[in-house]
Amino acid sequence: MIKVLDIRIEKTTSPKEKPDANHLDFGALFTDHMFVMDYDINKGWYNPRIEPYQPLTLDPSAMVFHYGQEMFEGMKAYKGVHNEVLLFRPEKNIERTNKTNDRICIPKIDEEDMLQAIRTFVDLEKDWIPEADGTALYIRPFIIATDPYLGVRPSNTYKFMIIACPVGAYYTEGINPVKIWVETEFVRAVPGGVGEAKTGGNYAASIKAQMKAKERGYTQVLWLDGVERKFVEEVGTMNVFFKIDGEIITPELTGSILAGVTRNSVIELLNQWNQKVTERRITIDEIYEAHKEGLLEEVFGTGTAAVISPVGELNYNGNIITINNNEIGPLSQQIYDTITGIQTGAIEDTFGWTLKV
Amino acid sequence: MIKVLDIRIEKTTSPKEKPDANHLDFGALFTDHMFVMDYDINKGWYNPRIEPYQPLTLDPSAMVFHYGQEMFEGMKAYKGVHNEVLLFRPEKNIERTNKTNDRICIPKIDEEDMLQAIRTFVDLEKDWIPEADGTALYIRPFIIATDPYLGVRPSNTYKFMIIACPVGAYYTEGINPVKIWVETEFVRAVPGGVGEAKTGGNYAASIKAQMKAKERGYTQVLWLDGVERKFVEEVGTMNVFFKIDGEIITPELTGSILAGVTRNSVIELLNQWNQKVTERRITIDEIYEAHKEGLLEEVFGTGTAAVISPVGELNYNGNIITINNNEIGPLSQQIYDTITGIQTGAIEDTFGWTLKV
Ligand SMILES: Cc1ncc(COP(=O)(O)O)c(C=O)c1O
Ligand SMILES: Cc1ncc(COP(=O)(O)O)c(C=O)c1O
Repeated sequence: MIKVLDIRIEKTTSPKEKPDANHLDFGALFTDHMFVMDYDINKGWYNPRIEPYQPLTLDPSAMVFHYGQEMFEGMKAYKGVHNEVLLFRPEKNIERTNKTNDRICIPKIDEEDMLQAIRTFVDLEKDWIPEADGTALYIRPFIIATDPYLGVRPSNTYKFMIIACPVGAYYTEGINPVKIWVETEFVRAVPGGVGEAKTGGNYAASIKAQMKAKERGYTQVLWLDGVERKFVEEVGTMNVFFKIDGEIITPELTGSILAGVTRNSVIELLNQWNQKVTERRITIDEIYEAHKEGLLEEVFGTGTAAVISPVGELNYNGNIITINNNEIGPLSQQIYDTITGIQTGAIEDTFGWTLKV
Repeated sequence: MIKVLDIRIEKTTSPKEKPDANHLDFGALFTDHMFVMDYDINKGWYNPRIEPYQPLTLDPSAMVFHYGQEMFEGMKAYKGVHNEVLLFRPEKNIERTNKTNDRICIPKIDEEDMLQAIRTFVDLEKDWIPEADGTALYIRPFIIATDPYLGVRPSNTYKFMIIACPVGAYYTEGINPVKIWVETEFVRAVPGGVGEAKTGGNYAASIKAQMKAKERGYTQVLWLDGVERKFVEEVGTMNVFFKIDGEIITPELTGSILAGVTRNSVIELLNQWNQKVTERRITIDEIYEAHKEGLLEEVFGTGTAAVISPVGELNYNGNIITINNNEIGPLSQQIYDTITGIQTGAIEDTFGWTLKV
């Protein structure tokens, strides 16, 4: 039985002006509305509604401010080549929502309900989806714990919300390889922790290393595992792939890595192309060794924001290596073109990944 | 040069009724006012003020809701035996505030300013300090990131706030030993992570193990280290001490443990009593071994809420041991009596720990 949400819609009376699609900052400008649904331990999730985008009012003792009981997701809606509105594998983000919820004791959301909430909201905001090449509407579902209570326990009340912002092409002129700092002092996550959950604390914990990398001229951090400090995990808000001597390798999901939707899509795509992809633990030393032998062909990150982000340089303990002459490799380019093509409907979707709103 | 905060005070026009001091829930009822100070990257900390306790209004995109950039402290104000208002080592909490801030990239707060904020606030709320034995006013300073922005980076704006709630005696009838579950599946923190910072994410990450322990009839979780999974770390919101064959041992501060103010006070007190305290790594196996040999005399947790909490039972992988016949040990009792005596001014404070407001 599919529950059907009865979503009350209150439209704004003062719509904002749409921004110039050529000058979109990521994450700074929000659309006219927001989706909200409340949770109470006695009622379950209730009162789904779309309201004008507006501030939240919470008690200063609300648990989210103190104990970080919060989760979020990130996905995009695209204006397709035939002007249709397309979501990319929303069921994956919904599945991950409940995986995160389980880890930090937030009550589950019905998957059909969440999909309906996203579709209804995106449909209402469809004029906010920018149409220029490479642009999209970034969709941010999130949940916060709202009990006004200072004891450490799961909250009895929550708010589930969806907000959205039009975002620009991640790359202004082609895909520029990024420089990555291999972090040896700070750790993001360990097995048994919350690394595979999309919860705020993981990101708060990552900021210091990211600032350190920035100061040294690096765009992002490559995390090593927190136990042996030698296995590669992921990059900032991206999973990571290595092409070594024809084989494509990505760290396996050991519990401390986020299971990226893009990561999974890249693996499925490569399988379709009959390219060997190995999910396994890989040490940073093995990567440096491969580079020394001239076998490290390409390195790239995968994530919703940039889709594919080639890595042009790694710095591990001061040892700097340049990958593929600091240029995007043919495999990275091919994957980028194919996935973005599927996302916008320009390339036929043989996977059933896209969903018309 | 000591900066002096110019704190604007707006008193409530509708003071709440004070609760019955014999029926105080921890963390559910707040006093009439709150302290607030804002931060802006261009202005620093500004606009310190005390206002009627009221809800906060924040943009749904405020960074605290998404990336957990938040910190808190916890301390108590006591009504002394001569009716004076006493704080216990507030400078320690202030020092720890800036240690936490540094780890999660929140701007430092001037230590004198923070102390002045606490004193001014507690002085205004002094009628809320309950007077019954074992009661106190729990003080909760906290900071949240408020930028309305969805990128992962340090926020450029913050709110520092102080709220407070009258809290009851932690133990209704003497100090009851608690049953503790030794957690082997979930991990709280690792060196290189944020375990020694008092930031929300650590607590969100801990809830699932805590629920698991509760379901099995245990009050709290004893965390093992996240690397080798055998060294004892801490208990829920307490540090932990073991008395083995006359020697008192507490896990050393390796970077993944919170440096408790009570922990430090217990060590200093024991030093004054010429009792040997060893800060070192200790495995759970060593503790079980000591118990087998009849050498495990006492186990207790230390923290602001309960001061001293004797441990009467441990369950490690189904192996249950009972400590000191499930009774409070003489050392635990002596420490509890002395520290609570100093906190309320009943025992002379030769350490300079208490501060009159
Ligand atoms: C820590 C982390 N790793 C990886 C990813 C990539 O995941 P996805 O491809 O689902 O965007 C993200 C972004 O969501 C992330 O935050
Ligand atoms: C994780 C954790 N460990 C230990 C403690 C004990 O610290 P303190 O003695 O400063 O209250 C607390 C409570 O603050 C805590 O949250």
